[in-house]
Amino acid sequence: MEGKKRTEIAEIGKFGLIERICSRVEPQNASTVKGCGDDTAVIDAGDRYVLLSTELLLEGVHFDLTYYPLQHLGYKAVVAGISDILAMNGTPRQIELALGIPARFSVEMIDRLYDGIRAACDRYRTDLAGGDTTASVNGLAIGVTAAGDVAKDRIAYRSGAKPNDLICLSGDLGAAYMGLHLLEREKRACGGQPDPKPKFEGHEYILGRQLKPEARTDIIERLAEAGIVPTSMIDITDGLASETLHLCKSSGCGARIYLDRLPIARQTHDMAEELHADPVVAALNGGQDYELLFTVPLSKQQEIFALGVDVIGHVTAAGTGAMLVTPDGSEIALKAPGWK
Amino acid sequence: MEGKKRTEIAEIGKFGLIERICSRVEPQNASTVKGCGDDTAVIDAGDRYVLLSTELLLEGVHFDLTYYPLQHLGYKAVVAGISDILAMNGTPRQIELALGIPARFSVEMIDRLYDGIRAACDRYRTDLAGGDTTASVNGLAIGVTAAGDVAKDRIAYRSGAKPNDLICLSGDLGAAYMGLHLLEREKRACGGQPDPKPKFEGHEYILGRQLKPEARTDIIERLAEAGIVPTSMIDITDGLASETLHLCKSSGCGARIYLDRLPIARQTHDMAEELHADPVVAALNGGQDYELLFTVPLSKQQEIFALGVDVIGHVTAAGTGAMLVTPDGSEIALKAPGWK
Repeated sequence: MEGKKRTEIAEIGKFGLIERICSRVEPQNASTVKGCGDDTAVIDAGDRYVLLSTELLLEGVHFDLTYYPLQHLGYKAVVAGISDILAMNGTPRQIELALGIPARFSVEMIDRLYDGIRAACDRYRTDLAGGDTTASVNGLAIGVTAAGDVAKDRIAYRSGAKPNDLICLSGDLGAAYMGLHLLEREKRACGGQPDPKPKFEGHEYILGRQLKPEARTDIIERLAEAGIVPTSMIDITDGLASETLHLCKSSGCGARIYLDRLPIARQTHDMAEELHADPVVAALNGGQDYELLFTVPLSKQQEIFALGVDVIGHVTAAGTGAMLVTPDGSEIALKAPGWK
Repeated sequence: MEGKKRTEIAEIGKFGLIERICSRVEPQNASTVKGCGDDTAVIDAGDRYVLLSTELLLEGVHFDLTYYPLQHLGYKAVVAGISDILAMNGTPRQIELALGIPARFSVEMIDRLYDGIRAACDRYRTDLAGGDTTASVNGLAIGVTAAGDVAKDRIAYRSGAKPNDLICLSGDLGAAYMGLHLLEREKRACGGQPDPKPKFEGHEYILGRQLKPEARTDIIERLAEAGIVPTSMIDITDGLASETLHLCKSSGCGARIYLDRLPIARQTHDMAEELHADPVVAALNGGQDYELLFTVPLSKQQEIFALGVDVIGHVTAAGTGAMLVTPDGSEIALKAPGWK
């Protein structure tokens, strides 16, 4: 089945793989405004754009059902889809879910998964609009497809950042990642015990960020109220480093992110200390924060502060790279995480 | 993790599961014209409808890479998505693919998969418009999301069939299923041989139907040219029995399908005979034919024959059931296949 040459995917990474896939694609339909290379596809629908994204959540990669309640997993799947729509400055409208269901699953387990899916759909006024179910011989697989729309003059691509724009971030980073590490630690500690008592007290925030993340519809609404259209935007799924690099590459610019401006919650710091981990690494590469990273013109500084959003850096000229600036002024190039 | 009661999914089947999932859904967005319960979601986009479908193809369930060439698999994934758009009488426009990639996959293998994806996109003038890649600890997982559009007065739901309508079918049935059985037989026969020589001669048609199915865009175009809008439509993915039951349930009617009118290809008959299988069972429950099953008013009989489409039965009143009529006039109730 295999050809002669074998290149490991890790050699080119997720970025390289997606670039390779997208490089030879020429849209043939006038309605395809944007195909590959952003958080969603953009489809011309007359007076508005329809936005469309899809992703897979796989057991053993994205979630561990030993400690992941099915309601929460359903909720998170919807949030992950909605977050992509928000990252285009759009309004989520429809969700479709395709499930690959292992034999060990009962109808009641599927009910619990859908309890979470419905709760998220209600919370975000998004309609569960179909999908598919099939048997799986491996683990649970969840295909999430999200659709939404946006006024044509309000769409935010990854590609519009300009030098001197402010780099803005909703919420804090790294908490979901430290929550995951806590869950993994307690899984190991409680393994095989008949009546496991995981030590979660005092860690509610980071657990919530991992197990029941929320999508930042509030930020999109506040930006609209303030009359601000971000010059570029992306959501934090793979970590700040990866997403900053995406914005820089798409916009053809560099970035300076200030380490001492990275918003990291108290509980994230505490857990990192307890686990002898670096909270900055969690912030840069942890991912699954579902926060919005975006740029606005420097002139919008006052309005942005009024929205309760942090400014963590600014856009620089092409060729200057995406840099993390430490408090002593030294600069470290941001790196995308490898293929895992 | 499990609740007290455990109901096996096989007890309620795929139909029951989807009904259970969809029963408690109330659309909240005005743009959601149709959510659950048809081949695609239907989104109001001003002067047209946007159509949206998603499904999962999983290794070990939907394909076996021992004999399934990756190019063909990519092609088939796109065809599966496009077929759903056609089943609404729509035109396919965009495809998004989310891949879960096992560690044994090389970049070259992904290239081959995308060669097939691109070939199908070219053939059907559909744009590859993004998606996602992630690692998989199990087999290859492919999430296929298809988008398309249709003029509002040309959409065909599953729900519009009326008594006396003709039941029409493009192409023949059961060939993909017999092709699969041939592939499985040769896999067993050649297992472990250093230089396997599977016996495929004379079976090219059924192999092609399994390994490289086509989507019936030609039928949708011919219906448009003839000025015919089907009163109901669905594509054949799970088999004629299952799809007929869907149309009957959605339309609130019964059906009579005539066994001697079922189009079954010569090679399908031959392979069934060779394997001591029943070609009618292959036609009714085999699936993966990607043909279109639709209904038109009786008055369209002449036009339909001119399109080269078979009339295999007619719609009957509610409460009469979906029946297969044998040549001697006896009637057998059609049954949906179980959860596998």
